[in-house]
Amino acid sequence: MITNRNQVTEQIISAKVMKGLKWSDVAEQLGLSKEWVTSGCLGQMAFDKAQAEKLGEIFDLSDEAVAWLQIVPYKGSLPTAVPTDPLIYRWYEVVSVYGSTIKELIHEEFGDGIMSAIDFSMDIQRESNPNGDRVNVVLSGKFLPYKSY
Amino acid sequence: MITNRNQVTEQIISAKVMKGLKWSDVAEQLGLSKEWVTSGCLGQMAFDKAQAEKLGEIFDLSDEAVAWLQIVPYKGSLPTAVPTDPLIYRWYEVVSVYGSTIKELIHEEFGDGIMSAIDFSMDIQRESNPNGDRVNVVLSGKFLPYKSY
Amino acid sequence: MITNRNQVTEQIISAKVMKGLKWSDVAEQLGLSKEWVTSGCLGQMAFDKAQAEKLGEIFDLSDEAVAWLQIVPYKGSLPTAVPTDPLIYRWYEVVSVYGSTIKELIHEEFGDGIMSAIDFSMDIQRESNPNGDRVNVVLSGKFLPYKSY
Amino acid sequence: MITNRNQVTEQIISAKVMKGLKWSDVAEQLGLSKEWVTSGCLGQMAFDKAQAEKLGEIFDLSDEAVAWLQIVPYKGSLPTAVPTDPLIYRWYEVVSVYGSTIKELIHEEFGDGIMSAIDFSMDIQRESNPNGDRVNVVLSGKFLPYKSY
Amino acid sequence: MITNRNQVTEQIISAKVMKGLKWSDVAEQLGLSKEWVTSGCLGQMAFDKAQAEKLGEIFDLSDEAVAWLQIVPYKGSLPTAVPTDPLIYRWYEVVSVYGSTIKELIHEEFGDGIMSAIDFSMDIQRESNPNGDRVNVVLSGKFLPYKSY
Amino acid sequence: MITNRNQVTEQIISAKVMKGLKWSDVAEQLGLSKEWVTSGCLGQMAFDKAQAEKLGEIFDLSDEAVAWLQIVPYKGSLPTAVPTDPLIYRWYEVVSVYGSTIKELIHEEFGDGIMSAIDFSMDIQRESNPNGDRVNVVLSGKFLPYKSY
Amino acid sequence: MITNRNQVTEQIISAKVMKGLKWSDVAEQLGLSKEWVTSGCLGQMAFDKAQAEKLGEIFDLSDEAVAWLQIVPYKGSLPTAVPTDPLIYRWYEVVSVYGSTIKELIHEEFGDGIMSAIDFSMDIQRESNPNGDRVNVVLSGKFLPYKSY
Amino acid sequence: MITNRNQVTEQIISAKVMKGLKWSDVAEQLGLSKEWVTSGCLGQMAFDKAQAEKLGEIFDLSDEAVAWLQIVPYKGSLPTAVPTDPLIYRWYEVVSVYGSTIKELIHEEFGDGIMSAIDFSMDIQRESNPNGDRVNVVLSGKFLPYKSY
Amino acid sequence: MITNRNQVTEQIISAKVMKGLKWSDVAEQLGLSKEWVTSGCLGQMAFDKAQAEKLGEIFDLSDEAVAWLQIVPYKGSLPTAVPTDPLIYRWYEVVSVYGSTIKELIHEEFGDGIMSAIDFSMDIQRESNPNGDRVNVVLSGKFLPYKSY
Amino acid sequence: MITNRNQVTEQIISAKVMKGLKWSDVAEQLGLSKEWVTSGCLGQMAFDKAQAEKLGEIFDLSDEAVAWLQIVPYKGSLPTAVPTDPLIYRWYEVVSVYGSTIKELIHEEFGDGIMSAIDFSMDIQRESNPNGDRVNVVLSGKFLPYKSY
Repeated sequence: MITNRNQVTEQIISAKVMKGLKWSDVAEQLGLSKEWVTSGCLGQMAFDKAQAEKLGEIFDLSDEAVAWLQIVPYKGSLPTAVPTDPLIYRWYEVVSVYGSTIKELIHEEFGDGIMSAIDFSMDIQRESNPNGDRVNVVLSGKFLPYKSY
Repeated sequence: MITNRNQVTEQIISAKVMKGLKWSDVAEQLGLSKEWVTSGCLGQMAFDKAQAEKLGEIFDLSDEAVAWLQIVPYKGSLPTAVPTDPLIYRWYEVVSVYGSTIKELIHEEFGDGIMSAIDFSMDIQRESNPNGDRVNVVLSGKFLPYKSY
Repeated sequence: MITNRNQVTEQIISAKVMKGLKWSDVAEQLGLSKEWVTSGCLGQMAFDKAQAEKLGEIFDLSDEAVAWLQIVPYKGSLPTAVPTDPLIYRWYEVVSVYGSTIKELIHEEFGDGIMSAIDFSMDIQRESNPNGDRVNVVLSGKFLPYKSY
Repeated sequence: MITNRNQVTEQIISAKVMKGLKWSDVAEQLGLSKEWVTSGCLGQMAFDKAQAEKLGEIFDLSDEAVAWLQIVPYKGSLPTAVPTDPLIYRWYEVVSVYGSTIKELIHEEFGDGIMSAIDFSMDIQRESNPNGDRVNVVLSGKFLPYKSY
Repeated sequence: MITNRNQVTEQIISAKVMKGLKWSDVAEQLGLSKEWVTSGCLGQMAFDKAQAEKLGEIFDLSDEAVAWLQIVPYKGSLPTAVPTDPLIYRWYEVVSVYGSTIKELIHEEFGDGIMSAIDFSMDIQRESNPNGDRVNVVLSGKFLPYKSY
Repeated sequence: MITNRNQVTEQIISAKVMKGLKWSDVAEQLGLSKEWVTSGCLGQMAFDKAQAEKLGEIFDLSDEAVAWLQIVPYKGSLPTAVPTDPLIYRWYEVVSVYGSTIKELIHEEFGDGIMSAIDFSMDIQRESNPNGDRVNVVLSGKFLPYKSY
Repeated sequence: MITNRNQVTEQIISAKVMKGLKWSDVAEQLGLSKEWVTSGCLGQMAFDKAQAEKLGEIFDLSDEAVAWLQIVPYKGSLPTAVPTDPLIYRWYEVVSVYGSTIKELIHEEFGDGIMSAIDFSMDIQRESNPNGDRVNVVLSGKFLPYKSY
Repeated sequence: MITNRNQVTEQIISAKVMKGLKWSDVAEQLGLSKEWVTSGCLGQMAFDKAQAEKLGEIFDLSDEAVAWLQIVPYKGSLPTAVPTDPLIYRWYEVVSVYGSTIKELIHEEFGDGIMSAIDFSMDIQRESNPNGDRVNVVLSGKFLPYKSY
Repeated sequence: MITNRNQVTEQIISAKVMKGLKWSDVAEQLGLSKEWVTSGCLGQMAFDKAQAEKLGEIFDLSDEAVAWLQIVPYKGSLPTAVPTDPLIYRWYEVVSVYGSTIKELIHEEFGDGIMSAIDFSMDIQRESNPNGDRVNVVLSGKFLPYKSY
Repeated sequence: MITNRNQVTEQIISAKVMKGLKWSDVAEQLGLSKEWVTSGCLGQMAFDKAQAEKLGEIFDLSDEAVAWLQIVPYKGSLPTAVPTDPLIYRWYEVVSVYGSTIKELIHEEFGDGIMSAIDFSMDIQRESNPNGDRVNVVLSGKFLPYKSY
């Protein structure tokens, strides 16, 4: 009996390690971005029926696991509020060091409101660079204004 | 007597409100990006002598404040580990929801290592969109590999 | 010198106590809801120029304070992550006890996504009731769907 | 052997996923609101005998599980004090941003006291809207005054 | 300018120390219990006009302070979530050690619901005892049932 | 193999649910108060041999479980420092709101010292009341003075 | 105006530094142990009138400060739950590493109960030792048994 | 397969309960103090081969468990930073209330440095006393000075 | 099924205890430093195929475990933010006590930037010393400057 | 009136900024290492009389400040348990990622015990390197063994 989405995530990760799959290949089979598909496989997004069944084939999942992939999960992928993993911590650090800057500049351009994390997409790419290749990430979020009422 | 950088940051913000300045204009006067200059004015970066003196003119700062702008500050711009401000929280949420995804995809492309938050730059732009304008942010960080030794 | 919005909030609250003003009257003078105006006066929203000047008159604020009212504040009105005040705690308790229920029912009706806290309004009313009057609150937030990409 | 209510909650959720049930249908079979029934199924309320047996039928529960549904559970449905799930977090954010406003306005109307979270009901509805449908939630709680003694 | 109730509380405590007053005498002058009056003087309850003015006389408070005594305060009298003071900690310990017991026994007698902390009173008395005097405290709170809806 | 008292507590609670026992009946069989017996059954007190064996009969416990009931447990019955369950939270709230009051009044009557939570007893009773029955709780703790040395 | 005991503690410490006093000499003038007197001077104990006046002479305190020394303070001398100061941390470490041992051995000898921290005294002495002098501390606390009722 | 020391600790405690052993007897069989042996059995110290084998006999441990007893464990015996168990909390309280006193008096006698928690021993004894027996504990730790360099 | 790297770490540690292996010998077989190899075996680094297979032989690991050793793990080896183990705590204490010093001196020598923890190596050696042997650790990290942009 | 060491630290830092001093020059004037002197100036160590007076001259301190420099301070230089400043965080990260490794290797070489953070010294040096200069830090701490007793 599967009682939460984490169990399906563990099955996917375990199968991925044993089969030597790549997230970008999985995404390609679903015809979607590697960013969205990976976050879904890691338990952060819900899949539709066709996507879930495709993932079921790729990772040899049971029908029960395929059913769970279509349920909206409880989101949040980190075990602690401040992440200990160095790669993820650097992103937390960006929010910590640049957070007030991001706030000031978005307000300066758009007024009071936020950059949506729901109507949102992310694209991660390698940029070749003679001083060492770089990770380039484009974040795109709709601006949502606070309005008086 | 100024005893920490926060006092200078408060003077800058106070002057900015009263003078009605824009960060992008301040940045232009320094010939640098609005992202780096704003983070510096908010107490996250150290300025060189010429930059600090220019800022002293713009914000009517004392010599002591100008001296403090050249000292490397204790960084971290947020009052709590999990930010309460909705705009900044959305960025924390991106790290929380997509953190494991970012980790997986950078490792898939580059192997073990991190995206630097030091050899790093950020560019925030408005993207016109008929469904509502979007905030587009490009983050660029050098990949730093873990190496065995 | 005013260095943050909290100082203006304190001036407003202090003036309100001494003058014996009511939030609903202040809101009426601005022609807006009591909920939005109060949250703004408590340092959670930014006012436009006309609104800020009106508030300046009502609360006898300095020009500097009026300028600060037009700046987007760092939001979050509670001193601790779990509020100690019994009235506010009950709202936290509703989120704690009913949080998973709200999540399930919104997803059941709308699919994956959230109820916006930005494109949002709130209306608080007294309901007469022979067993003791009730507080009725209507929360209205736009549904924002997660979309695959 | 069942040793706590969480185990029953997991059985209910697991059965719901496999059977493809909807909370609103379950509620209709009990003749009660979807909000109260869902919170009960998620381990936040106690059912009477008839209700528990009905749920036992719907979700194929053992007699032991049906017995546990009639025991008052230890309440609180969130794994962390500040919820990480974006949908639930937005409700926490409402409490954080509007908490002091709610406090001021209830006290202005009713005097010192609280809005009960026990003598309380909640109703969640879709509101059609050309700019995007909205989630409308009505919260109703009895006002309980503090009295001197 | 007084900007929050804590400042009034400090004035009261300071006056009490210098004048050598006793809480029970203050309460007697107000014709109320020592428990309710003390909690109000310590910033946890709001007074009506007559009570506040009487306290103003007793503690030599300014008109502004008297006005603040009539405002509902932000409640919670402890500096940390787990109190460090030994006397108060013992009460926290009672909740920690006996909390599950209290829950079980109230539910056994009354069903699902709570003992109100709002419709509530407390009485603290010395009990003479040859083995050492005892502190006897009677807590009385209305039972509030959860009801299905 | 039983490795901690929690396992015994779970066995007791599970048996109680299946057998439909009441704590007050269990206490009567032991000839002790329902408060002390319940707290012991919930893993907060140690029983003597006769008591443990009696409980073994009542709850069908193994000899190993009966042996564990005679071991002093690691006390503290709550899963988080600030309890999430509404019934228990109200008690935490009493400590939070009235904590400083309790401290003042005990010191006023007894001088420096504490009300013991060890040489302590608790009695929970229903009080009939036309406005709604009340929970009355008497707490009795020996006063322990701090002494200079 | 003195509004809390910390202000008196700061005056005492400041005077001690400027006058070059030793705690053991202060204690001798009061005819009490250095442990109790120091803890009192550091804001953890209340003094009687004669003691407070003597301390007023020694540290040149105002009448107001002398009055405050006779008020029972809010206790707890550490700024964080886990102390950062290495000397004090070592004591916290002893509790952490040996805590379960202390519990086991006191229960083995005395049964269920505690070692009082109120009916308690402490004596700190230097022990000469050829391998490096040692700090010897004797802690004496009355055993308080839990009793069934 | 044993994967951490906690599993061995649980086996020891379980065996001790079933066999009705006393720590002081176990210690005597090892020819060491009850304090050190108990802390080792509770997973805080490493044993040498002979000691571990002796313990293996006493508690009927497997060879694997005996091997684990010789591995230095990850130390810290408490489940939370602030202990909830009343007996252990009193020790935490001593550190909290007397921590600054201990620091002052050790520095007054020895200068800057610490009392070692490594080159350390502890002795717990019952002291008969007509007013109620006392727990006497002697802590002995080498003074380690900070030195300039 | 292995679902995370911790399970492999536990297998390695368990095998090491039973076989009586030394980390320095394991490292020698891989031809790498004991520091890097140990951190990898403890789940903090990813191994290449040859290294993983070698470790598989040394510790009798399954193919699945060997596959997992080549996956970049979620890093962070400590169970709590402030470590309780005395050996590791001393390192935390060095960061706490000397952290501001390290920051000042690196900035004084290099300007704004950090000492990398990624392009980093560590070497731990015994230094014989007549006053007691010392642990000497050399940390080497590339300086990474913040640059304006 | 100076009431704690932090005030002296602020005076020193403020003077250093205005005078443009370097820590290494200050250390040279005291004839001690830059590491120890800087940590002392930042409020982590106590100076002897001659050192304090020398610092008084260098930083133009009052006699009261010079007296305070000779008092052992409450140590710990970081405002939060997990440091937000990127340079200091990297050191915390080393403890987090390599903490279990350091523990294993010191125990492998020395047995149970710790590396002292008191009988300790630190040396920070620049290492020229064609791939970018490195920060080399040598930490030296006496090994202190746990001993049975």
